[in-house]
Amino acid sequence: MKDTAATPRRLESYVAGAWRTGHGEGQPVLNAATGAVHALIGTEGLDMAEALDFGRRSGGPALRAMTIHDRALMLKAIGLKLLEIKEEFYLESFATGATRKDGWIDIEGGIGTMLTFASMARREFPNAHVLTEGPVEMLSRDGSFVGQHILSPMQGVAVHINAFNFPVWGMLEKIAPSLIAGMPVLVKPASQTAYLTELVVRRMLDTGLLPAGALQIVTGPARDLLEHVSEQDVVTFTGSAATGRKLRAGRAVVEHSVRFTMEADSLNAAILGADAGPGSEEFDLFVRDVAHEMTAKAGQKCTAVRRILVPAAHEEALIGALSARLAKTVIGLPDDAGTRMGALVSLSDREGVRAKIAELAKEAEVVFGTPNEVSVASGDAEAGAFQSPVLLRAQDPLNARAPHEVEAFGPVATVMAYGDADEAVALARMGRGSLVSSVYSNDAGLVGKLVTGVAPFHGRVHIGNRGSAKSSTGHGSPLAPLVHGGPGRAGGGEEMGGMRGVKHFMQRSALQGTPEMLSAVTGQWVPGAPAQVDVHPFRKSLAELKIGDQVVTAAREITEADVEHFAHFTGDTFYAHMDSAAARANPFFDDRVAHGYLIASFAAGLFVWPDPGPVLANYGVDNLRFLTPVYFGDSLKVRLTCKQINPRAGGDYGEVRWDCCVTKQDDTVVAQYDVLTMVAKVWPPAGDVA
Amino acid sequence: MKDTAATPRRLESYVAGAWRTGHGEGQPVLNAATGAVHALIGTEGLDMAEALDFGRRSGGPALRAMTIHDRALMLKAIGLKLLEIKEEFYLESFATGATRKDGWIDIEGGIGTMLTFASMARREFPNAHVLTEGPVEMLSRDGSFVGQHILSPMQGVAVHINAFNFPVWGMLEKIAPSLIAGMPVLVKPASQTAYLTELVVRRMLDTGLLPAGALQIVTGPARDLLEHVSEQDVVTFTGSAATGRKLRAGRAVVEHSVRFTMEADSLNAAILGADAGPGSEEFDLFVRDVAHEMTAKAGQKCTAVRRILVPAAHEEALIGALSARLAKTVIGLPDDAGTRMGALVSLSDREGVRAKIAELAKEAEVVFGTPNEVSVASGDAEAGAFQSPVLLRAQDPLNARAPHEVEAFGPVATVMAYGDADEAVALARMGRGSLVSSVYSNDAGLVGKLVTGVAPFHGRVHIGNRGSAKSSTGHGSPLAPLVHGGPGRAGGGEEMGGMRGVKHFMQRSALQGTPEMLSAVTGQWVPGAPAQVDVHPFRKSLAELKIGDQVVTAAREITEADVEHFAHFTGDTFYAHMDSAAARANPFFDDRVAHGYLIASFAAGLFVWPDPGPVLANYGVDNLRFLTPVYFGDSLKVRLTCKQINPRAGGDYGEVRWDCCVTKQDDTVVAQYDVLTMVAKVWPPAGDVA
Repeated sequence: MKDTAATPRRLESYVAGAWRTGHGEGQPVLNAATGAVHALIGTEGLDMAEALDFGRRSGGPALRAMTIHDRALMLKAIGLKLLEIKEEFYLESFATGATRKDGWIDIEGGIGTMLTFASMARREFPNAHVLTEGPVEMLSRDGSFVGQHILSPMQGVAVHINAFNFPVWGMLEKIAPSLIAGMPVLVKPASQTAYLTELVVRRMLDTGLLPAGALQIVTGPARDLLEHVSEQDVVTFTGSAATGRKLRAGRAVVEHSVRFTMEADSLNAAILGADAGPGSEEFDLFVRDVAHEMTAKAGQKCTAVRRILVPAAHEEALIGALSARLAKTVIGLPDDAGTRMGALVSLSDREGVRAKIAELAKEAEVVFGTPNEVSVASGDAEAGAFQSPVLLRAQDPLNARAPHEVEAFGPVATVMAYGDADEAVALARMGRGSLVSSVYSNDAGLVGKLVTGVAPFHGRVHIGNRGSAKSSTGHGSPLAPLVHGGPGRAGGGEEMGGMRGVKHFMQRSALQGTPEMLSAVTGQWVPGAPAQVDVHPFRKSLAELKIGDQVVTAAREITEADVEHFAHFTGDTFYAHMDSAAARANPFFDDRVAHGYLIASFAAGLFVWPDPGPVLANYGVDNLRFLTPVYFGDSLKVRLTCKQINPRAGGDYGEVRWDCCVTKQDDTVVAQYDVLTMVAKVWPPAGDVA
Repeated sequence: MKDTAATPRRLESYVAGAWRTGHGEGQPVLNAATGAVHALIGTEGLDMAEALDFGRRSGGPALRAMTIHDRALMLKAIGLKLLEIKEEFYLESFATGATRKDGWIDIEGGIGTMLTFASMARREFPNAHVLTEGPVEMLSRDGSFVGQHILSPMQGVAVHINAFNFPVWGMLEKIAPSLIAGMPVLVKPASQTAYLTELVVRRMLDTGLLPAGALQIVTGPARDLLEHVSEQDVVTFTGSAATGRKLRAGRAVVEHSVRFTMEADSLNAAILGADAGPGSEEFDLFVRDVAHEMTAKAGQKCTAVRRILVPAAHEEALIGALSARLAKTVIGLPDDAGTRMGALVSLSDREGVRAKIAELAKEAEVVFGTPNEVSVASGDAEAGAFQSPVLLRAQDPLNARAPHEVEAFGPVATVMAYGDADEAVALARMGRGSLVSSVYSNDAGLVGKLVTGVAPFHGRVHIGNRGSAKSSTGHGSPLAPLVHGGPGRAGGGEEMGGMRGVKHFMQRSALQGTPEMLSAVTGQWVPGAPAQVDVHPFRKSLAELKIGDQVVTAAREITEADVEHFAHFTGDTFYAHMDSAAARANPFFDDRVAHGYLIASFAAGLFVWPDPGPVLANYGVDNLRFLTPVYFGDSLKVRLTCKQINPRAGGDYGEVRWDCCVTKQDDTVVAQYDVLTMVAKVWPPAGDVA
């Protein structure tokens, strides 16, 4: 293996607007697979308080001046740039002991996660500075006092303290939601693999797309960093439980009630269902996935399978099949094409793994592998941190301690036999909170039982069966739209989960006041707020349209003939519209009623402006409720009000959400819904002659 | 004042299924207004580990066997019973120093909050054991691997450590969401007023409606209670920051990553807008509200106004008007009809308040009131913990420390003059995180600026102006649908906020697998899961209907004549339907298109079963999206599938949500939405002859 850094690189920290080297020469960081000195690291003399302050004073205001879509587009551009130059990262990644496949999860998985966040944010969030959340709550009978929640970016720095195992993904999956939320970030990677994180941060800053102070990195010991966090900062931690607990109980974190999210040890289980015996597709899938989870990234994944729960009847077959598969694990230099599993991150980590195996072996027997010896197909078995996969079998799983508590952070797992489904659930719960567990079965009833049983102890539950054998992303991969994190031993944290993950970096505030005042704060029209009636609002482009622009239509009577006609035209001859006796027997109606779809259709007939204009399309309807029955002779009118305007960054149009309220002659509300339209930014379009 | 407990009552704890008195005689708890011994309290010898264990083993399973609606109905029944016997609580409440009006906030406010939660839960949550949250996420292109989040009740005990000031509300606003979530609770009231909480718990248990272990109370010191919490428990704390920090950093809380929610000191601000000078309605409202917030509950409210921010030009007028109003505060025995303000909770709390006033007075001058003297209209000014209202004025607010940090938990506030709006925001933020602040102004632009400026530092922002002067619930009242809690100094907690508050006692888990397996876990149909086509599902009552029951309709062509006819019938002659050239000029269409409402109307015509039957009404439509334009000659068909069944507890029918997918001849999806119907539980109705 060629070490890409023949001369070890002195790593730098990017803090307070400049790349800075700490005092002194730095401590050596070794190549995981060769033992050669790969980089020098240190932070001595760096001013951590200044770094946080720079983020708060410079990065925060700059990010908050952008909209959510601006920030998402910035991340998209950076992500695409990183993909272009990814080979540089793969080369550096080999030094961590990771194979190309391992590096793919980290590098392209990380960039992909950032791109997914950038795209979800533009799809699911408005192009705004402040988000609203949930409906407008009526707090008084007369509607003059109402409430709504908003989310604003927190005004501190998001400090992300990352683990060594995913130097790229671990950083990007955390900074993407933070930056989209509008919070500047300070990344503190684990020293063992900080050179790769530092390189990626360098390339991100090279793009020139990030405002000053939006992204900082402390490469090396954090020193007094967490002594300086304050009430608007957020701290996330991924790593060992022991360190995490110390940081969570730290003086400044506790004193300022700093949001602290932790992801720590997790003894994730994979459960084989009783139906999934040898010969079944699920059995083979289980063997394949568990072997993969044990050996990918040399088992250094927070989500790796550590506990293999199998029906007692299938235990022997499973151990046999899994051992046969593990025996094919070619161990060697990460950049060697024949290598299936690279090295652990360091020799001292290997010592740690071996000590944990010894602890496990007190309550379990080794059924595959050589804990303290390893044969390699390439490289030096002693200079590189190579480790044989090790499979153990717990003698008495329900009464064992170590297999449920001791996490050997390498290619190590313990098989546990169970009796019935309840016992499988009990065993899974003995992990006392995990990031993820899996259930492999093709019996939907059994899956329901096992999954609901383990869910309260898990942030994610993966279900494996033949139906998704080809499409599944597997047990071990956290996915951007799904929550990552787990209760109890797993640290009690929650991250990602789609746009939920962005909200972790925002402050939720309940607003209460008049509709007018709420509208003034949120930029969205609230029923009861002032409205303007002048030109029909469908004649206004986004350049002219304002929140509160309204049209109140003339009234239209609904006759028996209308309902009869609509019924026969559409084929909707539902009895409540056609049969007076049947309608009266119905608990909701006093007589024949108009179709809901007829009401909505007549409403559109009343409110549309028919001529060509800036309104391009009605692309949907939200929260339509029919609130009062409409009888023959009732007369309907519509009040349509511009509620929310969402111009698309980089497009010629944007979404406009209209509040549509249909009332009858006595002013009772017949139907209430949001009409969704696409509206041109300017009208007539540029280039057209009016 | 007659003390209601002439013989002091020995308080008991209800733990592990029985009312238990600790060893010994207990410590005296004094009547706040008379100084007489009102009760004796103690927990010596109680087994806290056993109490938690009993909740986990007995209360948890019993609550989880009920549905969310069952639990909500149970709380409703208990709440209505408590209202019937409320006078007993008012009598006991006088001993806390609270007037009848103060007691109303606590007692009826508390019961009302519980009833609101019970009603919101039935309205907003399904009648289920496990909740789904958010949409089904596509995790593979072919739809065979999908994800969704579920929420399950946590399987530990919710331990609520409450403050002395709201012995009823403080308990009920926390146990209502916990119990609705399905978590048993253990209440630990503050000793000063525990007699009232104990009495209410006693009456709640007397109803016999709560399963064993669902509600426990520790009356007196918590001792080693928090040493025994574990990863499925939740701890909430309301009280002093010093105690809260100690508990948050406690061994077991940290070791097991126990969810810990804290609500502590908060120096809430009220900001008078520059427009709201003397003579304006907002000025008068501000004076009224601030005086009320200072003196209600003798200022012992976490949400009381502590910092009064006024434009420098109005400072003098405000101090004058507020002082005049405060001068009318008649202080005396809480059960005296003429009393406007009762006593602080204890003499030692009064000492504390006076010490804090002295600290404030180093950076502010007293402009109203007598910190260390008080005249009372009734009662004994020395035996009772009476306190004069005190108004201070900070000399240099931007450079002051104490007025932003020191919370005198009594009828005490500090006036601070500001220059411009930015300075007002800066001052409000110097509280470093508060529960609530208020803005009083009738200038919508100014309100927008002030509110967005202070929001990231607050859990709630109240806007006061003439438009809600009569309907507003005011600055100080947390409301069930709105979040209560604040960042930083306020503790970083969040509670209530409607159904958000229930989720704090549930574990969110991401599920991933095939649609079939997800359906098996959630009990909701997921597109791609198996469906059954037999009898038309509109002919099935809830007793017969199953998730996945489906109808696939015949196809119907949409012709030019249909569109023309619909346009003229409804009046919706929007150009995209009528004018080929204009439609083609539109970025979304290649030619004239059918109306979205026509598509939905034809779809209903295709899928309804017209004869009288168990489907009673279509009450709405959710998430309707028109995904592909429909041109003349296109042929539509509909696949309608039963997605979610929600039988109403205690009613003859329930809600059924249908997945409605409209496709055209090439199988592209034209429209996708949920159809919402009411369906009878049995058909024909009982008593009818078929």
